[in-house]
Amino acid sequence: MSDLTKQIHDIGAKAREASRALARLSRQDKDRALTAMADELESNPHKILEANARDIEQAEKNGLSAPMVDRLRLNADRLKSMAKGIREVVGLTDPVAEVIREWTRPNGLRITKIRTPIGVVGIIYESRPNVTADAAVLCIKTGNATILRGGSESFHSNLAIAEALQQGGAKAGLPENSVQLIPVTDREAVKIMSQMDAFIDVIVPRGGHALIEAVVSNARMPVIKHFHGVCIIYVDKDADFDMAEQIVINAKCQRPGVCNAMETLLVHEEVAPEFLKKLATALEANKVELRGDEATRKILGAGIKAATDEDWTTEYLDLIMAVRVVSDQEAAVTHINRYGSHHSDAIITKDTQAAESFLNEVDSATVYWNASTRFTDGAEFGFGAEIGISTDKLHARGPMALEELTTYKYVIRGEGQIR
Amino acid sequence: MSDLTKQIHDIGAKAREASRALARLSRQDKDRALTAMADELESNPHKILEANARDIEQAEKNGLSAPMVDRLRLNADRLKSMAKGIREVVGLTDPVAEVIREWTRPNGLRITKIRTPIGVVGIIYESRPNVTADAAVLCIKTGNATILRGGSESFHSNLAIAEALQQGGAKAGLPENSVQLIPVTDREAVKIMSQMDAFIDVIVPRGGHALIEAVVSNARMPVIKHFHGVCIIYVDKDADFDMAEQIVINAKCQRPGVCNAMETLLVHEEVAPEFLKKLATALEANKVELRGDEATRKILGAGIKAATDEDWTTEYLDLIMAVRVVSDQEAAVTHINRYGSHHSDAIITKDTQAAESFLNEVDSATVYWNASTRFTDGAEFGFGAEIGISTDKLHARGPMALEELTTYKYVIRGEGQIR
Repeated sequence: MSDLTKQIHDIGAKAREASRALARLSRQDKDRALTAMADELESNPHKILEANARDIEQAEKNGLSAPMVDRLRLNADRLKSMAKGIREVVGLTDPVAEVIREWTRPNGLRITKIRTPIGVVGIIYESRPNVTADAAVLCIKTGNATILRGGSESFHSNLAIAEALQQGGAKAGLPENSVQLIPVTDREAVKIMSQMDAFIDVIVPRGGHALIEAVVSNARMPVIKHFHGVCIIYVDKDADFDMAEQIVINAKCQRPGVCNAMETLLVHEEVAPEFLKKLATALEANKVELRGDEATRKILGAGIKAATDEDWTTEYLDLIMAVRVVSDQEAAVTHINRYGSHHSDAIITKDTQAAESFLNEVDSATVYWNASTRFTDGAEFGFGAEIGISTDKLHARGPMALEELTTYKYVIRGEGQIR
Repeated sequence: MSDLTKQIHDIGAKAREASRALARLSRQDKDRALTAMADELESNPHKILEANARDIEQAEKNGLSAPMVDRLRLNADRLKSMAKGIREVVGLTDPVAEVIREWTRPNGLRITKIRTPIGVVGIIYESRPNVTADAAVLCIKTGNATILRGGSESFHSNLAIAEALQQGGAKAGLPENSVQLIPVTDREAVKIMSQMDAFIDVIVPRGGHALIEAVVSNARMPVIKHFHGVCIIYVDKDADFDMAEQIVINAKCQRPGVCNAMETLLVHEEVAPEFLKKLATALEANKVELRGDEATRKILGAGIKAATDEDWTTEYLDLIMAVRVVSDQEAAVTHINRYGSHHSDAIITKDTQAAESFLNEVDSATVYWNASTRFTDGAEFGFGAEIGISTDKLHARGPMALEELTTYKYVIRGEGQIR
């Protein structure tokens, strides 16, 4: 066993031990620890900001783009808002110990299906250092120990934030090692974490293709991927054109760099000429570049770039949109189930029957009728906080919040029953 | 890509296509198909029994033990009971389309969290051919396509049963390829299945260590293991001795070869001398062989074999029981969380507070107070049918039935909402 493996297994064993102690804490104990964590982040910002300055310096040396550097940057305000986020989690309802179902069998056995912490949650993420606090805090709220593995760009910031959380937790009596950060940036660490199913109950990777692949191809435990969103909007022949235009512009342009922004537009052929010409003006005003199929280019002119098969599966995260004219709704649904990422897809129509069949047949985490895909978000759902958007089907699908950080067990009370 | 890989990928692609069609079926459609499957199994038993005879002949040539050969054996009665099992599933409630939760956001968006089929379920199992029918039928009931991969011992029987299910389904208009069986016994097939996450949404392996390991070390999709049960009963100092004896004898002896049978007994040191002496008589009458720790051997005599560390993690599946004396309840809980398999564990006590703390602190799928561990079973829970007992924490824990063969999606209805 290599030294690195030993080091990471040791972190795992400590997390497992901490998880047993965490599971016994009351809601009050956990909330007190979270408040102490928020206090600690706010009361002594200098150490974190110093560490962050080192990351920023390195990022600029490495030639990271200005928006990427900005994502990395912390300041007093951002730390305050991180602390505020923690205090909001304190106010949320802890789902642990909630009774999901309860029934009595004919033999008198009383069966209670009850929510419990998962145990140890591994979080592997890239870039923004605030994820360190967000993820740790949601895990503590639900009684889970957490092992964090952040990206190398925010390494020093992550370490400093984790240390502040640990110190705050310690002051409020949180079990030692409830929150741990892997203190190495070696990619090998991801592989080692992914294989230690004795110590980690679930891994949540948030990031790009290479990171997700490193986890998926090695993992021995359940993985809940937070991967990309190729969100698609289908404009039906019975759509309200004004509404369709507003929704498309919102879903594409309001914040193009996020996973619930739309990437592909499908239009029913009966209305494609009229609708696409109307939409083109708004798209131009918003500087959206198009990739069209043949029919789209016939309508809007050959000046538009031709879409290739690759466009249907591309998450542009930019003011670029693929457009395809479809012969009917079945073709739209087939396109979405085949090329989409099963994240968030919408139909715009006044026809209730068409809408219900779309909502039923599209195999995605979130399906919309007459609304923007941008609503796929823990806060917009009313969940209060989220650890991200799961692009997997099990055990969490779509916005992943506190409830999705729990599992369940069956508690059975008897009076001596035997078989 | 090897020919075998191509062949299995082709099965996967067909299953994915079938799953889209299956998801659109009504409850009546699915139940009609299940009834036709049951009819087909009963109406023409000769082909299945002939195929089974080939498996039995081979098993006897290979020197399989008599109980193993008996597990393989089919006859007209067993086929009838397989068909009866299918008809019982017809009578169960289909959880698909059930509304889990529904709420309206302040902006008017109506969010419905609704149960859906998972998609394509891979089932990898060993030995008993009836699993072919049981697993396929529960998947069809919940609108999932299934890819089955049975053990080589029951290869011909599985093929014949799958063919009968397919023919029955076809007569009732079930989508083609809803049920497929991998027609090769090569272990390589398990590896290929485990890696084709584009076509299989979840794999359920039921079997021994080598099978489980082949899946876990290769799988790219979620795995729900049906592994072993090292079930433990803790007899507290405030236990009713008669009740404790009845429960221990039942949990150990009523059917020792199953996963919810007990394997280890823990006894509080205060009552160990009196209780173990009382229990010894009953154990002897039931021909149970013991493996005791030092304290146990002091009480019952050195004639008892000494338990090694390995005994605490062994699933005997036989009339053998490990016994350990513990200093207090905390030691019992620590032992269970460390050495147990997180399957089913019990406390026997009259002390409510001790019981509640045990139920809370033991990290197992099912925890009992004053009842036999033998009740961990879909039918005993009132689930009507089960695909097995999950020894995993996500997405199904404990008895896995119809509900656990579904996932969910969010359906959102709006009137043009944008962000």
